[in-house]
Amino acid sequence: MKSSLSIIKIGGNVIGNESELAKFLSLFSELDGLKILVHGGGNLATQIFKRMGVASQMIGGRRVTDKAGLEVITMVYAGLANKNIVAKLQANGCNAIGMSGADGNAIQAHKRPVKDIDYGFAGDVDGVDANLLSRLLGSGLTPVFCAMTHDGKGQLLNTNADTIASELAIGLSGMYETTLYYCFEKNGVLRNIWDERSVIEHIDPEIYQELLNQGTIADGMLPKMTNCFHALKNGVAKVCIGNTIMLAQNENPYTTLTL
Amino acid sequence: MKSSLSIIKIGGNVIGNESELAKFLSLFSELDGLKILVHGGGNLATQIFKRMGVASQMIGGRRVTDKAGLEVITMVYAGLANKNIVAKLQANGCNAIGMSGADGNAIQAHKRPVKDIDYGFAGDVDGVDANLLSRLLGSGLTPVFCAMTHDGKGQLLNTNADTIASELAIGLSGMYETTLYYCFEKNGVLRNIWDERSVIEHIDPEIYQELLNQGTIADGMLPKMTNCFHALKNGVAKVCIGNTIMLAQNENPYTTLTL
Repeated sequence: MKSSLSIIKIGGNVIGNESELAKFLSLFSELDGLKILVHGGGNLATQIFKRMGVASQMIGGRRVTDKAGLEVITMVYAGLANKNIVAKLQANGCNAIGMSGADGNAIQAHKRPVKDIDYGFAGDVDGVDANLLSRLLGSGLTPVFCAMTHDGKGQLLNTNADTIASELAIGLSGMYETTLYYCFEKNGVLRNIWDERSVIEHIDPEIYQELLNQGTIADGMLPKMTNCFHALKNGVAKVCIGNTIMLAQNENPYTTLTL
Repeated sequence: MKSSLSIIKIGGNVIGNESELAKFLSLFSELDGLKILVHGGGNLATQIFKRMGVASQMIGGRRVTDKAGLEVITMVYAGLANKNIVAKLQANGCNAIGMSGADGNAIQAHKRPVKDIDYGFAGDVDGVDANLLSRLLGSGLTPVFCAMTHDGKGQLLNTNADTIASELAIGLSGMYETTLYYCFEKNGVLRNIWDERSVIEHIDPEIYQELLNQGTIADGMLPKMTNCFHALKNGVAKVCIGNTIMLAQNENPYTTLTL
């Protein structure tokens, strides 16, 4: 039987909020078994963009990354956010090791080809080095990935944190029973977006089709769902979506997706 | 017989100078055997301090690190400088992994006690996890350390890069025959500071005493020498001081220190 591995993507709303981050890191540290954390830069990135006087353009929820923007992202994601998280996990007794996709060549990617939109230094993932990660996990380390990859030719690339989490979960599903956790600001996938108590606790492809037909799932939740089912179809055992509190495995409801 | 391990501290003048850095990283990649790179932030840090509007105070060649300064240092050392070096080494076929002392709890330190001067968030090293580093080296990885440590209680600390290099070399000398390389802007320890051809090729404690008596070694070179002999007295096999070109092991002279 394969060991279990949890891949947890932390929400952007938690990064840069000191008390929320501390709460999350405490829950994460207490989580049993092998685990990997994935984060972006959240509000922290927005703040530093402003302070450095670097303009930041978003198209369809994705950042357009020019040379100056990539510098800021490298500083905030791989530096400020990553090292503070690692130092705090260490204080909680979790032996974290901060990484980008360039470190140990863990995640290779290529610059997104320009079609209608030029996203600049944005990376689409080619593959994950499961052997490297398995060696790190096996020696008691907990990898903490910031949302950056590289192209193997010396270029760092800004890469969507949700995608990094799902690619890690897929890439490691041959060696581990992987569960993917997406933490965000809501309690889960909601029937009524204005009612936090309307969490849909289980979604499979059939239920998903019904929800789509009813128009219950739309807008920002659509790419998230596509990403989740992509992961499930490629070997990931389970995807969970909810507030950070779902990691406590208490009675608060959250959404679980399976095939 | 113990395997050889080279610990190379890159000069601040090289970081932030794209062509010099590329030259150095190419030499570093071609270096045979196990190796570890150590870097600070150099000019790059000074530039970002300015752009962020954060004041930076230096006392006796050491930076006083307040909260805002620590943020900038974390962004530049662990983010911008470290990840660019790692991505470029990967492009050269060197399987680099970027680290701070917090990552994997590799280097623990404590905040420097306040005596006459309060250096703020400056760290004095307590110890190095040689087993972790040996596992990383043994699996084909080349650690690249930025000049940061942590106190194990969640606090990152700015730590002198020369010190990190010597502590790594000392800490690993039980498992490896360690050679410490200090790359800086000069060809080595010079008899005449204005003459780059006046390199003193070998220094041992006896010669060092003579040079001190003659007043040949003074000012900025004194703490560097103290640091070198401290390393030698604690298990390091050899210390080399010179321009990056010394890594090419060609005929250019540089300074070697032994006991």
